[in-house]
Formats: sequence, C-alpha cells, structure tokens
Amino acid sequence: MVEEFARLDIHRAERTGVPEAIFAEGKTNEQVISLVRSMVEKAGIALVTRVSDECAKALSDSLGTACTVNHNQLGRTFVAKNHNYNPKSSGGKIAIFAAGTADLPVAEEAKVTAETMGCDVTACYDVGIAGIHRLMEPLKLILEKEVSAVVVVAGMEGALPSVVRGLVPMPVIGVPVSTGYGYGGKGEAALMTMLQSCAPGLTVVNIDNGFGAGATAALIANQVARAKVERNKL
Amino acid sequence: MVEEFARLDIHRAERTGVPEAIFAEGKTNEQVISLVRSMVEKAGIALVTRVSDECAKALSDSLGTACTVNHNQLGRTFVAKNHNYNPKSSGGKIAIFAAGTADLPVAEEAKVTAETMGCDVTACYDVGIAGIHRLMEPLKLILEKEVSAVVVVAGMEGALPSVVRGLVPMPVIGVPVSTGYGYGGKGEAALMTMLQSCAPGLTVVNIDNGFGAGATAALIANQVARAKVERNKL
Amino acid sequence: MVEEFARLDIHRAERTGVPEAIFAEGKTNEQVISLVRSMVEKAGIALVTRVSDECAKALSDSLGTACTVNHNQLGRTFVAKNHNYNPKSSGGKIAIFAAGTADLPVAEEAKVTAETMGCDVTACYDVGIAGIHRLMEPLKLILEKEVSAVVVVAGMEGALPSVVRGLVPMPVIGVPVSTGYGYGGKGEAALMTMLQSCAPGLTVVNIDNGFGAGATAALIANQVARAKVERNKL
Amino acid sequence: MVEEFARLDIHRAERTGVPEAIFAEGKTNEQVISLVRSMVEKAGIALVTRVSDECAKALSDSLGTACTVNHNQLGRTFVAKNHNYNPKSSGGKIAIFAAGTADLPVAEEAKVTAETMGCDVTACYDVGIAGIHRLMEPLKLILEKEVSAVVVVAGMEGALPSVVRGLVPMPVIGVPVSTGYGYGGKGEAALMTMLQSCAPGLTVVNIDNGFGAGATAALIANQVARAKVERNKL
Amino acid sequence: MVEEFARLDIHRAERTGVPEAIFAEGKTNEQVISLVRSMVEKAGIALVTRVSDECAKALSDSLGTACTVNHNQLGRTFVAKNHNYNPKSSGGKIAIFAAGTADLPVAEEAKVTAETMGCDVTACYDVGIAGIHRLMEPLKLILEKEVSAVVVVAGMEGALPSVVRGLVPMPVIGVPVSTGYGYGGKGEAALMTMLQSCAPGLTVVNIDNGFGAGATAALIANQVARAKVERNKL
Amino acid sequence: MVEEFARLDIHRAERTGVPEAIFAEGKTNEQVISLVRSMVEKAGIALVTRVSDECAKALSDSLGTACTVNHNQLGRTFVAKNHNYNPKSSGGKIAIFAAGTADLPVAEEAKVTAETMGCDVTACYDVGIAGIHRLMEPLKLILEKEVSAVVVVAGMEGALPSVVRGLVPMPVIGVPVSTGYGYGGKGEAALMTMLQSCAPGLTVVNIDNGFGAGATAALIANQVARAKVERNKL
Amino acid sequence: MVEEFARLDIHRAERTGVPEAIFAEGKTNEQVISLVRSMVEKAGIALVTRVSDECAKALSDSLGTACTVNHNQLGRTFVAKNHNYNPKSSGGKIAIFAAGTADLPVAEEAKVTAETMGCDVTACYDVGIAGIHRLMEPLKLILEKEVSAVVVVAGMEGALPSVVRGLVPMPVIGVPVSTGYGYGGKGEAALMTMLQSCAPGLTVVNIDNGFGAGATAALIANQVARAKVERNKL
Amino acid sequence: MVEEFARLDIHRAERTGVPEAIFAEGKTNEQVISLVRSMVEKAGIALVTRVSDECAKALSDSLGTACTVNHNQLGRTFVAKNHNYNPKSSGGKIAIFAAGTADLPVAEEAKVTAETMGCDVTACYDVGIAGIHRLMEPLKLILEKEVSAVVVVAGMEGALPSVVRGLVPMPVIGVPVSTGYGYGGKGEAALMTMLQSCAPGLTVVNIDNGFGAGATAALIANQVARAKVERNKL
Repeated sequence: MVEEFARLDIHRAERTGVPEAIFAEGKTNEQVISLVRSMVEKAGIALVTRVSDECAKALSDSLGTACTVNHNQLGRTFVAKNHNYNPKSSGGKIAIFAAGTADLPVAEEAKVTAETMGCDVTACYDVGIAGIHRLMEPLKLILEKEVSAVVVVAGMEGALPSVVRGLVPMPVIGVPVSTGYGYGGKGEAALMTMLQSCAPGLTVVNIDNGFGAGATAALIANQVARAKVERNKL
Repeated sequence: MVEEFARLDIHRAERTGVPEAIFAEGKTNEQVISLVRSMVEKAGIALVTRVSDECAKALSDSLGTACTVNHNQLGRTFVAKNHNYNPKSSGGKIAIFAAGTADLPVAEEAKVTAETMGCDVTACYDVGIAGIHRLMEPLKLILEKEVSAVVVVAGMEGALPSVVRGLVPMPVIGVPVSTGYGYGGKGEAALMTMLQSCAPGLTVVNIDNGFGAGATAALIANQVARAKVERNKL
Repeated sequence: MVEEFARLDIHRAERTGVPEAIFAEGKTNEQVISLVRSMVEKAGIALVTRVSDECAKALSDSLGTACTVNHNQLGRTFVAKNHNYNPKSSGGKIAIFAAGTADLPVAEEAKVTAETMGCDVTACYDVGIAGIHRLMEPLKLILEKEVSAVVVVAGMEGALPSVVRGLVPMPVIGVPVSTGYGYGGKGEAALMTMLQSCAPGLTVVNIDNGFGAGATAALIANQVARAKVERNKL
Repeated sequence: MVEEFARLDIHRAERTGVPEAIFAEGKTNEQVISLVRSMVEKAGIALVTRVSDECAKALSDSLGTACTVNHNQLGRTFVAKNHNYNPKSSGGKIAIFAAGTADLPVAEEAKVTAETMGCDVTACYDVGIAGIHRLMEPLKLILEKEVSAVVVVAGMEGALPSVVRGLVPMPVIGVPVSTGYGYGGKGEAALMTMLQSCAPGLTVVNIDNGFGAGATAALIANQVARAKVERNKL
Repeated sequence: MVEEFARLDIHRAERTGVPEAIFAEGKTNEQVISLVRSMVEKAGIALVTRVSDECAKALSDSLGTACTVNHNQLGRTFVAKNHNYNPKSSGGKIAIFAAGTADLPVAEEAKVTAETMGCDVTACYDVGIAGIHRLMEPLKLILEKEVSAVVVVAGMEGALPSVVRGLVPMPVIGVPVSTGYGYGGKGEAALMTMLQSCAPGLTVVNIDNGFGAGATAALIANQVARAKVERNKL
Repeated sequence: MVEEFARLDIHRAERTGVPEAIFAEGKTNEQVISLVRSMVEKAGIALVTRVSDECAKALSDSLGTACTVNHNQLGRTFVAKNHNYNPKSSGGKIAIFAAGTADLPVAEEAKVTAETMGCDVTACYDVGIAGIHRLMEPLKLILEKEVSAVVVVAGMEGALPSVVRGLVPMPVIGVPVSTGYGYGGKGEAALMTMLQSCAPGLTVVNIDNGFGAGATAALIANQVARAKVERNKL
Repeated sequence: MVEEFARLDIHRAERTGVPEAIFAEGKTNEQVISLVRSMVEKAGIALVTRVSDECAKALSDSLGTACTVNHNQLGRTFVAKNHNYNPKSSGGKIAIFAAGTADLPVAEEAKVTAETMGCDVTACYDVGIAGIHRLMEPLKLILEKEVSAVVVVAGMEGALPSVVRGLVPMPVIGVPVSTGYGYGGKGEAALMTMLQSCAPGLTVVNIDNGFGAGATAALIANQVARAKVERNKL
Repeated sequence: MVEEFARLDIHRAERTGVPEAIFAEGKTNEQVISLVRSMVEKAGIALVTRVSDECAKALSDSLGTACTVNHNQLGRTFVAKNHNYNPKSSGGKIAIFAAGTADLPVAEEAKVTAETMGCDVTACYDVGIAGIHRLMEPLKLILEKEVSAVVVVAGMEGALPSVVRGLVPMPVIGVPVSTGYGYGGKGEAALMTMLQSCAPGLTVVNIDNGFGAGATAALIANQVARAKVERNKL
C-alpha cells in the first residue's frame, strides 16, 4: 500500500505542478546553492523564496551558465531552470490585489509562485478600502478576464480581502502582512480580521506567506483550466 | 489650589452634562437601588447601564412613583429622573451606526447615553461592509442632518468604523463588540482592526463600551452646539 | 458606478449560489424565525447555522407547512426551502475529512453548506494521523471520485490537513476545532499548526467555521464543474 | 451613486483639511520622495511621519527650492508645501499633554499634524501623575484658552489621560506610548489602562499613533471653530 | 542541617504570626471542615478564604460550640479560634484603600487577614482617582495614625496604588482586582499598570489576592511594632 | 488643601530618602547629563539606572570634579553626589539573593539603590533551588544580621523567592529577570511563578526592576530602623 | 511497506501495553458506552478518563455483569475489563507526587493509567515546596523502592517537579494543573515554570494531562522491568 | 536530614552521570572559561551549550593543552575533558529525529549531550511528515537497534513527534524549534501541537532545549542499560 503513497506523490507532482520551494531565510548561501542544484537536476526548476540580494548574487555566480535564472528583487524570489526546461502555460488565470507599498514583497512572492506554476497573473497593486471606488477598475478587469481565484494581500487592519470577496464570484485567499505597529501590528490584526470575516469563500494563509497563497490560487486556477481542456478534448 | 480642583469639577458637571453612570453588573439590586436614589437626589437624574430585566423590575418597583423611570430592555439601560428634572435639548446631533443584531445592545447603550446628555441621535442599524452600497442612504442622511460625531458599533472583523470614517467629514468613535467566536472572537479582532485602521479621525473605546462612546460623541456634539449658540448670542 | 456594485452583487448570487446564512447563536427564536421567513421569501432558501434543538423545534413549528425544512441535529443546521424552490445539482464534488467524534458537528455544518450549494459531498469521518494507514481508503476514494476540494476538520494538534494536503492533488481547506484542553486547547493549537504548515495548497478558516470551509470548497468545486459544462456547450 | 462617494470624498478634503500623510518607516527614500512630490502637486502640501534624519535630508536635497519644507527632528515629521500654498488658520484650538522625555516624539507628531490642519496647539510637556499638583497650571491654561480637545500622550502605566479627563470639560484623546520594559512594557499597559478607564469622554488611538490623535483633535476643534464662524456669518 | 530548616520554620511561625490559610474554593465542605479542625487544634486559629455562604454555614454548624467563629460575608472569610486562643494585638498598624463596590470583597479579605495577625486596620473604601481631592481626608488620617504599610485595592485601570504611593512615605502593596470587561478586563490592565508604575515603593500581589496583600502589610507593620517594643524594653 | 499635597511631598522626601532616579535607556547622553546636573543641584544626589558604559563615561567626563561619582558597571548604575552631600547610614538592613550570573545586573541595581537610601546590604549571589542546601549559609547569615527585608532576584522558572519566603520571617520582594528562552522566557515565567506563589509575604515588582525592589526593601528597613531609634530617644 | 506500518502498530500494542483511552468529556453517555463496549471486545480492557459520576453510573448500569468495572471517583476514571482479561503485573515501578487537594484528580488519573499498564505505583500526596523537609520521607521511600520514573503533579507556581528532579536520579514527568486564579492561574504559570526549569531530566505534558504523564512513566518503567527480565532469561 | 539531601545529590551524580552544563549565551568569554575550568577540575568534564564560534575559539585558546576539547559548530556545543577523564560507554541507546536544516543545531545539541552521558546515538536527520514514507527506513533502524528513547526535533507545525510516537514502542521526547514566522512562528505552534498531541508517551521540553531532551533520553536509556547489566551480574 505504500506504493500507493508513492504513486500519489508522483501524481501530485504531475497534476499540480507545485514546484518545491526553498525558504532561504536562515540558511547559508552554500546550503541554498546546494539545494537549488539538486532540485534543478531532479525537477528541472527550483523556486527560492525570502532570498536576500546578496544570496541571489551568490546563486547567479554559482549557477553560472548552467541554468536560466530569474531574480525578483522586490518579491525576494529566485527561480532557476534547466535550459531545456520548457514550462507550458497552464491556462490558469488568477489575480493578486495589494493595497500599499509595504504589501508588494508578499504580493510579488505570490505572483512569481503562480507564474512558476504556469498561471497568467493579473496584478492590481493600487487598491484599498480607504478609497473604495478605486476598487471598481480592477474588479471589472478580473471579471472580464474570468480569473479563477484572487489573492488579496493586506497589512494593518486587513479588511480588503473581506471587501473584495463580497464583490466577486470566485474564491479569495487572504494574506495578512506583518506591517504596522502597536497593538496587533505584526500582522495579527490582519490575520484576525480575515479569520473573523463573515464573507464565505475567503480563506487565509499565515502572515507574509505569499508563496502559500500563490500556490493555492494557482492550484484552483489550474484545476479549472484543466476542466475546460478535458471537456474540450471530448 | 485644591479649591481649583473642586471648581474644575463643578465646571465639568455644569458644562458637559455627563451624568454619572452606575454599572449594574456584579452589584446587588439593593446596591443599585441605593446608588440610584442617592444620585437622583444629588443630580436629578441617574443612568444605570448593564441592568438585567430582573434588576430593572426591582428598580421600578422600589422607586415607585418618586421618579420618572425608563427601562431600555435591548440596551440594558435604566434612567431615573426627578419629576421636576427637566432636561433641555443640548442641540447636539450625533449618529450611531451598527451592522448586525448582535451589535444592537451596545448601540442602544450609546444612544440612551447621548440622549440623556441632551443630544438628538440618528440611529442607523442596518449597515455593513458586506453590502457597501447600503451605506449610501444613512451617509446621505447624516450629512444632511449635519451630525457632529458618529458612533460606529462593530463586532467580528470590525472594519465598518474605518470604512465610514473614510466617507464622512466628522470624527468617528469605534466600539468593538464581543460577538463572534474562534481566534479574536471576543471583540479582540474588532479592537485590533480599529486601532490598526489608517483612517485618521477614528478613535476607539473598550470592547462593548457603548456608554463611553455615546458620552464622547455627545461631548463633541454638545461642544459644537454650544459654539453655535454662543456666537448666536453676540 | 454603484450600479456596477449592485450588478456585481447580483452576479455573485447568480453564479456562486452561496445562500446567505443565519448564525443562530445569541439570537432569540423570534429573531431567527423572522430572518428565515424573509430570506426564504427573497431567495427561496435559508440556511441557519448553530441552531439549538429547541430553536429548530420553534422553527419547524412556526414555518409549519409553508416550507420544506431539514434539521441536521449533529451539525446544528436548519435549512428551509420554498416548496417550489428546486435546487439543481451543481455538479461540483468535494470531500470532508474528520478524525474524531468531537469534530463531527463542524464537519456536518460544512457538509450541509456545500450540499445547499448543490455539491456532491463525500464524507470520511474515520481518519486520523494516529493510524495513518487508515487514510488510504478514503484517499483512494476521493481520487477516483475526482473531487475538486477537500475540507479537513481537526481539533487538538490539528496535523491532519497538512498530512492530507501532502497526499492529494487538490486544494485543502483546514478547519481548526475548539476541542481539547490546556495550553492551546480551544482550537489555537490546531489553528497555529495549520497556518505553520509547510504544505502549499492548504488554506484555513477560523476555529469551528464549518460554514466558511464548506462554502469555499463548494465555490471551488462549482467553478470546476461550470468549466466542464461551459466547454461542453461549445 | 458612486458619484456621491466621490463627492463625499471631495467634501471630506474640503471640510476637514486632513492632509494625507506618508508613513516613511519601511519605505526607501526614493519611494518617499516620489510620494511627496505627487502629493504636493495634487494637494499643495504633504505630511511625512516617522521620517529618519537621513531620509529628511534626502527629501530636503531632492525637493530643492521647489517647496517650502519643514523637518521636525524630535517629532520625526517632514512637511513640504508649494510656495503658493497658503494655509489659513482654522481657528481650532487644541492642547497636547505629555509626561516624560520618551513621550515627546509622539507628542510632537500630534502637534505637527494638528498645526498642518490649521490648529493652534498648546503643548504642555511637563505634567505627570507623580506630581499631580503640577497639573494645575496647564489645566488653568487650557481652560482659559478654551481648547476644544486635549491629546494626552503617556507611556508605562498610562494613567494620565484618565486623570486629565476627570478634570476638564472637553474630550480627551489618549495615545499610549511604547516606552517601558517588562510585562506590558511596549505600550500594552498604557493601552489597556486607557481602554479600562472609567472616565467617559476619553477615547484612544493605537500605540505611538501621534498622527491619528492629532488629526482627531484637530477635526473636533475645527468643527467647533467652524460652528462659531458659521453662526457668526448669520 | 535540616534541623535548622525545622528551626527556621518554628521561628517563622513564632515571629510572623501568619496563620496558615485555607483556600476554600474548589474544596468540598467536608474537606474544608476537616482542614479547619486540624488547624485549630494545631495552631489555635484557622483562617478560611474564598468561603461561600453555604460553606460558612456548614462550618458554623459543624464546629458548633467548640470554637469561636467569625464569618465575614463580604470578604468571604471565616475565622475559627479555640475558646482559649487569646490573640494579642501586635501593635502593627496598616491601612487599606479601595475605590469601588467591586473592590470590597478583596479589601475585606486583606483586612481580616491583617486583623488575624494582630494588626490595627484603617479601612478607607471611598477613594478613587476620578475625584482626587477625595483622597485628602484618608491620607491625612493614615499620616496621623502612622500606619506602616498601605494596601491599595483597585480594578479596571488600576491607577490608584501608584497615585497613593506618590503621596505617602510608607510602602504600598497593590492588589489588582478582576472587575471590568473587554481588553484587559479580568484584572490584567490593573496588574500591568501597577507593575509599570514608576513609583518606587509599590509592590504587587496577584489579581484578587487580598490575603497575600494583607499578610504582607501586617508582616511589615508587625516588624515595625516589634522594633519599637524591643527598643522600649531596653 | 493642595498645600497639604505639597507638604506630603516634602514629608516623603524627608522621611523616605528615596532619591529620584533617572532611567537612562532611550535617552541621549545630553539629556541624561542635564537631568543629573539639575537633580544634584536640587537634591544633592542623583541615581542613574540602565546606564551604558559609554554614557557613564560621558557623565564622568562632563561632571568633572564638580561631583563625586560612582559607576557600577555590572549593575549599570551611576551615582553622582555633591562633594558636601554627606549621607548618613539609615540603620536599615536588607539582603539581596540571586541565583545566577544573568541575575547579577538586576541584583546590583537593587543593591546600589538601597545603599543610596542609606541601607546596609548583604548580597548573597550564589544561591539557587537546584542545590537547596546551599541556601543554609545565607539564611543563617541574614537571620543573625536581622535584616528587615529580602530582595530575591530570579529568572527562568523564578521559584527562588517563594522558597526563601517559606524559610524566613521577613517580607520578600521578588524580581523576575528577563533571562531564558522559549515559552515564558523573557521573564514571564518568573513573574507568573512569583504571583502564583502561595507564600504570603512575597510581593513582586516588574521584570528587571531592580530599582523598585531595592527601594521598597530599603523603605521597609528604614522604617524599622527609625522605629528603633524613635523609641530609643524616649 | 505499509504492511510494516501495520506491523509496527501491532508491535506497539504488544510491547507497550498502553490501553487506548476514551476521553469522556463532551461525549454523550451513549457514545461512551458504545466505545467502551467495542474496545473491551477488541482489547479486553477499556480505560475511560474525565468521566462524570453520572456517566460512570450509566456505564456500570449498562455493562451490567458483562464486565468487571472500576470507577475512581476522585480521578474521574472508569476501567472496564472482560472477566477473562487477566492482566499481569509488568514489574514496572513508578511514583506519583502531588502537593495539594486540588492536584489529586490529576494525580489519580495518572495512577490509574499506570496501574492499568501493569505498574506498581507509589503515591505520595502530601508533599510541597512550602515545607521542603516534608519531601524527605517520600524521597527515601522511592529510592528504596527503586522506581524508574516519577510523575509530579503541581498547580499554581508549579515549582515542585523541578525541586524533585534535583533530588532524584530518575526522569521526572511534570503535569501542570489548572488550579489557581489571576495571572497565569489556569495552569499556565505551572506549565511555564516546568518548561523553564533548568533541571535536565524533567519533561512535561499538557495542563491536567494525568493520563499522558501516567502512560509515559509506565512506558519507561515497563521498559526497565523488561530489560531486567530479558537479561534474566539468558 | 540535610546529610540525606547531600547524599542524594552525590547519588544523583554517580548514577545519572548528567554533566552540569554551562549555558554560554549572555555570558562573557571570561565567565565561560572560568566556569569551564572549575567544572573540569571538579568533575573531569564540562559541557558548554549555545557557544558562539568566537567563544569556542577563546575556550580552545585558553584551555590550551590542559584539556581535551571538542567543539561542535553546528550544535553550538563545546566539551572539555581532563586528559585522564575516561568516560565509559553507558550502554544506553537513543535516537534523534529531525526534519529540516533549521532543526539541526538543536538536534546536535541533544546528540552531544547524550553522548557526553555515554549513550550511543542514532541520528536520523532526513525525515518529515510531508513525505511519510521516508520515515520507514529510520523507524526500522531504531527498532532493530532497540533504542530506549527517541528525541524528535521539529519546528513550524511540530507534528513529527506525534506521528513518530504513534509508530514506535518507546517514549518520545519532543523538542519544539523556534523556526518559522508569522502566527505561532517562534516555536509556539510546535510546542502547542506537541502538548495537544493525543499520543501518550510523548513528553515535551521547552522550545530549542536540545540539552534537556538529550539528557532525558540518555537518562532513560542509561536506566534500561543498567537494568540489563544488573540482572546480568546475578
């Protein structure tokens, strides 16, 4: 029966395309480089999160010409691919909303993650409940695009995911961000707000976990895309 | 110099008209009755908060015909006045917003408090961020009425005060309510959200403290009303 | 532009089919009955959660023969429908996993919610990480059934959602349950565990929020079902 | 109806004169400079809070002679105005109380905010409950000046706002400060104390939020000043 | 050397006269009665705290005429003495301050404890920082009486001990009380305030621990009284 | 009556001799120097706590030959006296217990404080509950010396104050220390333990507050010493 | 390989003899009875914890003469065995220490658990750090008996396990108990104290988890007993 | 009787062989060196934990050729022995499991501790619940080796100890690790999970306390080894 476990595991990789990710924080450059090498060899692609500029440079220098690399400085991500790794678009479509400058690193981490999983990502980074009418343009856009999931990144009071979920027909994944100060300031207020929200269809990942939110949104979107394709084949 | 303290104290009573309030929870009926009697005698009026139905009945029975009494069952308040206590309208105008059934006791406590201080109170109890367009009617109403302060009562995620403050020109006093369940469910999420709000002009009182919110709003409104009258006298 | 808001709102109802739900806890029977009547009139169907046996009886007695009613005692839910309300299956398929007796009320709340949204729900209530090999049967079942999302309900240590997500290709929604005692015993340990989980594709709702989890899973599944149907139409 | 939202928004700016503020902490100098430029262009004035000396220098260097700039080092604020921006006094009057050296940055942030909104600010920075008789002079001063609101900044035990509110007739806005150490030392004790205070008319902003407190006090004071003027016009 | 431990123990009993106390909460009447009997036999006197009316009645009934008993209903204490137990006044003098009705049970528990240790206790139960001038009379009284320690009982914001300590020359023991509601409402705000207080000479016991506060105050006062007597003997 | 407040204040200074202390942390050297100068001028002596080596050097350099200065590096204290300030011994006697290297800075802060108040301090820094028999020598010592109060400094589990109080006849003041790591590691475990202790006669100051503990112990001891002297005069 | 999992599971049951336990709290009598029946049938024995008197009576009535039952009222445990279930003594020896009346239910739960696992249990329920010399007798006893593990149950300050571990050569398992009140009063102080303890060889289970502590101690003791026996066989 | 205490203490050292450990964090190099010297002199061996590379170098330099030293950089431990200190293997066998790179320092601290106590340690550092089938090899290994206790080190969600305990017959000691981020990220989620675990036979030490876990496991294993030997002697 463990063969089944193993088989499941292979199925998972095949069907979801979630790349294993390396959390760089607290690891030495050497450890990160070694993990990236082994992952690229095994899977053709490696996604590193929470990567410092200095570590990204070490990665670029070390991997030399062996890989195609891509460093997103704002999102603190680093992607390395085999030259012959040729990912196809999954057809999945998601959107990512963020309200302020401080939310961008987390939003970009989610974006890179979903793109690595083959998704088309619509990023709307200038929204916020302070000026609710500014939500209209991005909402119209994502309805036209027919995205399958929306990631909403929000710090401080964290009310945006709940407001967005009240206005769109697809699932929303809230990501609390550790900006702010004072009581509840390290993302706790935002996390609590999202969990207390009375908007069904809103689920939450941990504070600052852009990777998890992007992966979940892409998982949903790729499932929908696959459903369209499968039927189409008939 | 202590005479000055004393004088200040008298000034406060004269100018603010904040009635001393009796918090009935955890007191025996006998204690509450005795405090009400002495306060009515001294100040002409007594406001009791967090009064149970059973205690309100005991108060009514005991004060008999000596006072004019008023029990607000929903708001758990009880007001007793000397028959010859004849409070004048202060001219102050405030509004109170609440979103759900569970918020009404706290909203009513605020309402009775402000009315006891002579204010005209506009209560809007059917608003909420889930359906933001439902905010429009009450907002128009309070702008026409030119209220001087808005109390916004909100439990669970507590995002309403911040949204309201973003749409009106007067100060907003947020009251977190201890409804909800799970992480942050006893009003903590709402309190955090309000404190984290980036809307300047929003201040907060403790969880369930309708009395404090109503008193502050009335204090502001009465000050504005007095300003109009004073100038008028010239 | 507010017309657009309004239109969005209608779209949402049409497309997602999430019934508004009434949280009965802390409301009087009269309040609940009145809300159910008005919702059935407006939407054809009403879902009540956290309903006591005594309140369910009052609802049954009051709604008499006007509605088709359904009380799930274990899940503390009550559904009332117009006789002419004839919900179609959405074609969406989800699964719900739970490990122990104490998790069943929350799991059933999720189940009723998803069924109300037209989903086919596979309930697997006898799984747990203590005996991991007991997971095999239900996992095979949901892979064969091709469910689009899995709700995993877990109290105490809350490790089950993470384990399940590691073995299946679809998104998992974790629901912490407020069982247990001592440090972290009111669902906090389970909530923390799920948020800390390194399994991407796992998102979380608040402690005991079966309704939110069921609604999200159904939202995802119905989206996938719609995708199949839409393509099919071509 | 969204036009109304928009109109409200304009009304708010016109009537309250709350300048949008830029929270500099966690932003690059480039981001802050860019935001200031755009805000000055749009609104004639920009208020930056939590600005480091180094960032303030970059702002001064960059904005060169295009603006009139004002850096308050103690309060960590930076104000930039168009040369032709000519703010009128609002006629509003507030006071700011603080007890110790550690409270001054927050008090100054409140002061600059209120001044930017056109208020006359009376700062009393040498008060404290340890020597209550030292409160007498400032209290007499603000009663003579007839200020409309008092901001009270307090760290550690945070008892000063409650004491002040007990002695003056106008609303008090308490600002907890993150000084102190040990249990409750990062402003939590002060926040709790202020929320628990039994002095009605005291409301609270988040820990260290001088900007919010100053803005609220000025909002109240400007409202009172406007009331006087409006009546005066008749 | 353990003999020394034992000797120390005897010394402690002889010199401090702190009666062992029985915490009745969570014990059956039978357990309490049995403990009281054995303690009276051993030590001549027994002090029971947190005793319900019903348990006090059982104690009175059971101990019959064998003891002199004293039930303080407000303070929830019960003292039983051998008829031939004839405690002398220690000559120690303390004061107990409390601000509100809700603080009285804890204050009375402290009072009975100190009296059981032979102290003369001056109880001042009508003080509070809301009306600071009302502190003057009791302060004068305790200075005239030359008490050696002051117990200050305070709930909610808990600022009274710090204010009192700023005005008197003797040590102050603060007792936070679990009254209040909302954030910090179960005595935590009061505890934090007292620990954060910058008034040296103020120490704290746990929330509601009137027994510990009374015992400490009596310990200090009896030490002072003994010092006077010892010198007097010379 | 405020004259009485003032008089009280003078009485306090005269009788208790608690020097005002300057908390140096978070202040600039310039601020500290200025405060020390003014305090020495006013009171003859100034006690600075939490002083860094670098600040102490600045103080020494600045105060030059104008004062007698004393820097305790371990205790992070700095005392400056007028050359003609000639403090007399108060006759008070206290002891200070500490268990480990990490507790010494707090213990020394307490020691310097009490010495500044004229006390004779017996410091026992090599005790601990791990080897309870090592407590015997210091306990015998303080019994022989007849100290009037014991300060017990303890981090991590914080059990020492309770054990000591169980073995000695005088009041014990516990000081939790912010050493340790993990759950409860920043002094919270020690604070909780001390507050939960069932040993009456043990009171507590805030985490790391050596100053407050030393001042309270000295206050008690000086009171006892004064009692002896007063009687002696007769 | 899953066969191996299964085999492991059987090994575990065979070698450790830990009976599965039923946590009765929050289950209906019917659920408990049904679980007990099935477990007795499967394993010959069932251990129920947290059983109310009323539930125990229902169990006795229902199981009638089919089982041998044993209800420990103080420990809230219920054991049911097949008449032909004949457990042998394991030869393992443990001790259980508790300090006060309030700790006894948890201590008894541990005792019954270990006895069900075949251990010989020495219960010492009259120890405590207040009177450390009272520890001597039980310590001598368990050294003579050569127990292999000691369970120490302690509420409030929770210092006893650390003290005991400092005096004995075998591992100690601490069980915090949810007695006490105020800050840290629901077992948190005891839990923190035990985790912070610097006594290596002390490990901890959750608050009130007598079952887990008893099972672990028995596991250790049975292992030691088996080691003796195994060697003996050679 | 204290002689008995002393004797106990000697017994403990003799029988358990737990070396006293020096926690280097927060100590100066001089303090650490001095403590090591005195401990080596007294006991022949000294174990230092949480030692920085820089401090380890100072130790090596200082102890020169007087000792045999061993610095484990990953585990941050340093062991110094007299040249004539010749520790014998205890015969005890334990295993240590860890899941990720971040857990290794704590795991190595446990390993060095147990080895210092004479144990044979099997370290399995590549396990994790994400890939449960990877647990099989190490589990088979430790069953073959017949280890007497397993230390399981786990950060983030902390579910591994519970899973392992469900699969093996010996006691498991869980060590939460302070890796991770967001809600529960500093080891609290892992600690809570382990305490909430329903797997009897799992006990816990404080976050990051590898020393305590290793010492406890060795204590158990050495006890079992001794039991074998003792019987063997017969």
